[in-house]
Amino acid sequence: MIKVGIFGTGRIGKIHIKNLINHPKVDLKMVVDPFIDEDFIKALGVSFSKDEKDIFENPQIDTVFICTPSDTHYDLIKKSILAHKIIFCEKPIDLDLKRILEIKQLVEKENVFLQVGFNRRFDSNFRKIAKEIQEGAVGKLVQTRITSRDFSPPPRNYVEASGGMFLDMSIHDFDMLRFITKKEVQSIFVNATNLVTDYGDIDVDTAFLLFTLMDGSLASIENCRSAVYGYDQRIEVLGKDGRIFCDNKYDNSVILCNKENESRENPLDFFLERYRDSYKNELEDFIFNVQNNNPPSVGIDESIEATILALAALQSHQQKQMIEIASIKAKYAL
Amino acid sequence: MIKVGIFGTGRIGKIHIKNLINHPKVDLKMVVDPFIDEDFIKALGVSFSKDEKDIFENPQIDTVFICTPSDTHYDLIKKSILAHKIIFCEKPIDLDLKRILEIKQLVEKENVFLQVGFNRRFDSNFRKIAKEIQEGAVGKLVQTRITSRDFSPPPRNYVEASGGMFLDMSIHDFDMLRFITKKEVQSIFVNATNLVTDYGDIDVDTAFLLFTLMDGSLASIENCRSAVYGYDQRIEVLGKDGRIFCDNKYDNSVILCNKENESRENPLDFFLERYRDSYKNELEDFIFNVQNNNPPSVGIDESIEATILALAALQSHQQKQMIEIASIKAKYAL
Amino acid sequence: MIKVGIFGTGRIGKIHIKNLINHPKVDLKMVVDPFIDEDFIKALGVSFSKDEKDIFENPQIDTVFICTPSDTHYDLIKKSILAHKIIFCEKPIDLDLKRILEIKQLVEKENVFLQVGFNRRFDSNFRKIAKEIQEGAVGKLVQTRITSRDFSPPPRNYVEASGGMFLDMSIHDFDMLRFITKKEVQSIFVNATNLVTDYGDIDVDTAFLLFTLMDGSLASIENCRSAVYGYDQRIEVLGKDGRIFCDNKYDNSVILCNKENESRENPLDFFLERYRDSYKNELEDFIFNVQNNNPPSVGIDESIEATILALAALQSHQQKQMIEIASIKAKYAL
Amino acid sequence: MIKVGIFGTGRIGKIHIKNLINHPKVDLKMVVDPFIDEDFIKALGVSFSKDEKDIFENPQIDTVFICTPSDTHYDLIKKSILAHKIIFCEKPIDLDLKRILEIKQLVEKENVFLQVGFNRRFDSNFRKIAKEIQEGAVGKLVQTRITSRDFSPPPRNYVEASGGMFLDMSIHDFDMLRFITKKEVQSIFVNATNLVTDYGDIDVDTAFLLFTLMDGSLASIENCRSAVYGYDQRIEVLGKDGRIFCDNKYDNSVILCNKENESRENPLDFFLERYRDSYKNELEDFIFNVQNNNPPSVGIDESIEATILALAALQSHQQKQMIEIASIKAKYAL
Repeated sequence: MIKVGIFGTGRIGKIHIKNLINHPKVDLKMVVDPFIDEDFIKALGVSFSKDEKDIFENPQIDTVFICTPSDTHYDLIKKSILAHKIIFCEKPIDLDLKRILEIKQLVEKENVFLQVGFNRRFDSNFRKIAKEIQEGAVGKLVQTRITSRDFSPPPRNYVEASGGMFLDMSIHDFDMLRFITKKEVQSIFVNATNLVTDYGDIDVDTAFLLFTLMDGSLASIENCRSAVYGYDQRIEVLGKDGRIFCDNKYDNSVILCNKENESRENPLDFFLERYRDSYKNELEDFIFNVQNNNPPSVGIDESIEATILALAALQSHQQKQMIEIASIKAKYAL
Repeated sequence: MIKVGIFGTGRIGKIHIKNLINHPKVDLKMVVDPFIDEDFIKALGVSFSKDEKDIFENPQIDTVFICTPSDTHYDLIKKSILAHKIIFCEKPIDLDLKRILEIKQLVEKENVFLQVGFNRRFDSNFRKIAKEIQEGAVGKLVQTRITSRDFSPPPRNYVEASGGMFLDMSIHDFDMLRFITKKEVQSIFVNATNLVTDYGDIDVDTAFLLFTLMDGSLASIENCRSAVYGYDQRIEVLGKDGRIFCDNKYDNSVILCNKENESRENPLDFFLERYRDSYKNELEDFIFNVQNNNPPSVGIDESIEATILALAALQSHQQKQMIEIASIKAKYAL
Repeated sequence: MIKVGIFGTGRIGKIHIKNLINHPKVDLKMVVDPFIDEDFIKALGVSFSKDEKDIFENPQIDTVFICTPSDTHYDLIKKSILAHKIIFCEKPIDLDLKRILEIKQLVEKENVFLQVGFNRRFDSNFRKIAKEIQEGAVGKLVQTRITSRDFSPPPRNYVEASGGMFLDMSIHDFDMLRFITKKEVQSIFVNATNLVTDYGDIDVDTAFLLFTLMDGSLASIENCRSAVYGYDQRIEVLGKDGRIFCDNKYDNSVILCNKENESRENPLDFFLERYRDSYKNELEDFIFNVQNNNPPSVGIDESIEATILALAALQSHQQKQMIEIASIKAKYAL
Repeated sequence: MIKVGIFGTGRIGKIHIKNLINHPKVDLKMVVDPFIDEDFIKALGVSFSKDEKDIFENPQIDTVFICTPSDTHYDLIKKSILAHKIIFCEKPIDLDLKRILEIKQLVEKENVFLQVGFNRRFDSNFRKIAKEIQEGAVGKLVQTRITSRDFSPPPRNYVEASGGMFLDMSIHDFDMLRFITKKEVQSIFVNATNLVTDYGDIDVDTAFLLFTLMDGSLASIENCRSAVYGYDQRIEVLGKDGRIFCDNKYDNSVILCNKENESRENPLDFFLERYRDSYKNELEDFIFNVQNNNPPSVGIDESIEATILALAALQSHQQKQMIEIASIKAKYAL
């Protein structure tokens, strides 16, 4: 049994709480949130508090889940490391690469288990594609494409705090590109603009991103903050020996044919519903690795690499030219 | 909160336990099974016993889930009624229509809430089709078809105790036919044979069943005990104004195209996986109705009607002619 | 080069004319129709006449295509045989089995090449399914299902002359059942009614037909005179080792996703458009066999067998019981 | 009736001959090819010659189809203009933009009808997408993507003469981008490389091309000279109000499910088969416009615009930066 304390009872916090409370290998000891949703927690019968010390100083808790707002992650991770807890932290570690690198040093120094919440790696579609590519189903990579579009744009104040589309949204796709191809990026070019929202003064909302990977193959990401038909998350890979791709996820597969046309319901449009199973799979993977003394499947290096790509994307967008990833790394002495 | 006791820790019992233990509106008090899987139960931290009295005589338990072998349902239901519990019972109530009718009398006399576990009514595909038909999406019914094929045949000893294909397997489809069309059956004709198993001496394994419904529309069921490509459960309905249908359920939607062909993984082949969400939805529905003093969504009458159709199917198969449902009902003075 | 004369310039006649006139191995000599569409023919620059002798007595014409109304087929075939022409005749040979048998005798006596126009055998979907089944792709047959629904019902006067749904429409599906399975039918049961037209006084318009084939496997046909969403022609076969099926044919594969749903255009709804390619493939096959002294791919026996099934279907419908095909054959001393 | 002479009896010439010879509104007078396939032509019974004068100097021929190798187009068009013929010319007019502009001047001066063979505009999938977009089905454009991959790479000597991938292959997609969006391109960025062929010394074979269109929306083209699974030609467009896309074309829609998986045949892999219907539709459109004194649907301006995009793509590839289309136009004083 792992003994868990959770920070944060927002949308993602609740997902983890529901998955943890039911798990035969988990003892959920405590939930901490200064703005806690007491009704929700009481109904579950879980101990709760507004004071983070009730987790950090409780020797019976060996594992923490950090599901609070992004700007608190850095502090909570540092405190968790110093309290020698096993750590699961939702993405991002931080928006500032220097602070992520600082966490990395601490993790290595203190030899702590830290997993980052790139939950899409545990989606059945993307996991299957990654597996098939690794097993050589399509041969040497030629063209990889990731389509990733939100259902509806986030509010303006969210975007202001998010670090912008590349650090907030594309970062999932940067991680997915590395996860699917198992290749690092050599260079990146971005063509981004503002077409679907009214906050063009603070951020872009639509982009094509082009990549050359280290094996010489090409890749692209298609991002948009709005897709009226649902949450659009698909991947397609062309290799020398074939093509592999997936469709979106739907509540049902019912098709209606009438005088007008053939139709079906739109894909799932809410990320918690769309990725419901991936959160569960992620948890299984976390528990398995903790209990078997394995390193985390998704460690801090994945967070660093994705953040570097986001910084390169931002620079390419600003300078309108191709950016070598090596040049970003050089800046940070990586 | 409803306070639940569960009988049975087999495959379906475990499904219900996992769904109940996690539910914010449920207090799972006790699990009873004479052959209990102690490791499973202990890991969950649930009280358990081998003695059914620990449920029946516990006044703190107001609700029972009966998930034991079919031949024990009749007794457990009767005892549950007499103990004035709220009852959820897996199908079938019994193989003998007379005993089901006896239970019905008792339920009505004691005014007890009894829900029968026709879980497929809560599948997202079938629920959507039923809803669309009721809302008139395809107009007046013309031809309804249910395809229902198991992945692999059950063992011979299971079949011997099951009551045969019509009472064990087709009964789900009889219920589905009534659920989808909201019509009763007028007559039935069966063409059944043995093609995919070696127990032709005790049961058929393949059948087409034809129906005339009370509104004059036609229907068919396609049953087979074996489908090597997965658990095959689909429905298609033709109406005067359109057609509606669904596909099977898959783990993922990944398609691989190589030199040979385009391919994807087979549909889910295990019923607990295929109907995982329908069990959860069924539980939500049960709790909602119990807490709101509604009658059960799936009451004993559904069990009676489906059993009558199974008896008619058996008779049609034996006599090789069309059977009027009224003739079966007359025998039981219904 | 085969030198062709065509009888009939109706819908199907025009299809054959267009395919023949362009064919490098065909010399289209003459078109005969007492009610000829002169504008159409003149535009093509083909010789034409209203007198059938201009074909029968022209020694330069070695091949005839009979595309006139059904009730003239019998006479034209007989005259063609006596004039020793190679014959392609649209279905049906005749509605009266005795007259078809008479033609068969004449064909055999005079050793004439006679092909019957069951064009669906040359459809790319059905041909592929037939080929895969023959090559064992699904193993031993278990359940075969043919769905065959017209887009809109024919007019009342057409139905009156057509011989009824079984002889006019289902007959294509009887032929398809034999073509797909390569098995003869042992027995048949029909559940037919009138649901989508107002000519219930003269014919049924909706039916499920059940079959036991000679190998013991089961089959069904779903017929309806009306399907508002298009011409619905699909086949699905379950074998011990797999399942094979096809979808309808569409003008394009474009899918539109908007706020409401995902949709596409309906399938093709006109049989000449739906089966455009099958008519071309049929012609290629005919020419190939003629030029290589092969027997016809679809000879008069196919017409006889399909007609027997139609007669059995009619009898089953009238008597509401299963009919042994052997009993029909016995009546005709077959 | 239009009276046609054809230059060229290669692959595409044969397609046009077959479509023209059968057409009720066409009188095919003469086929000219210095290396004529006599057997093919004789079998069709068409007059033929090796001397182009037999078309140019024949006053009975009012229309020419130019289907010869690309490097002869320029001369044949000029002669056809001077002979005042109606002209259909396969793409490209020429590889040299200056010579295309010269033809344009001549066409305008002599007021000749000249149609360019961008046949894909007449494909049922792409035509439907273009129509829906124009009718506002997806609203304002956001992201357009064209996937265009050949089945197998052309031979080295073909590539050497072709002008390279952008002028030979991508040019179809440049035209398609303009056809689908009805927008001109503002700027282009290319990331191209050599991954699937061994002629990296003379040309690239794989590319992502990014565009900003004049309405501010973004677009991309995915090109590859090799796709082992078939000829891969798809389009997907995201608009503010929806998404529209199409799949490839297949010979049949048959799906086989067995123990291993679900599979279907690959898409059509030969462009003449894939675009068979588009060549026919193109011809219908040509004849309609000629007979109704309309301007051609696809005039020389389409060829000029597509060629400019190819030149910009080449420059972007060489300079590794975004190219403004205006800068290319300025060079040619356009």
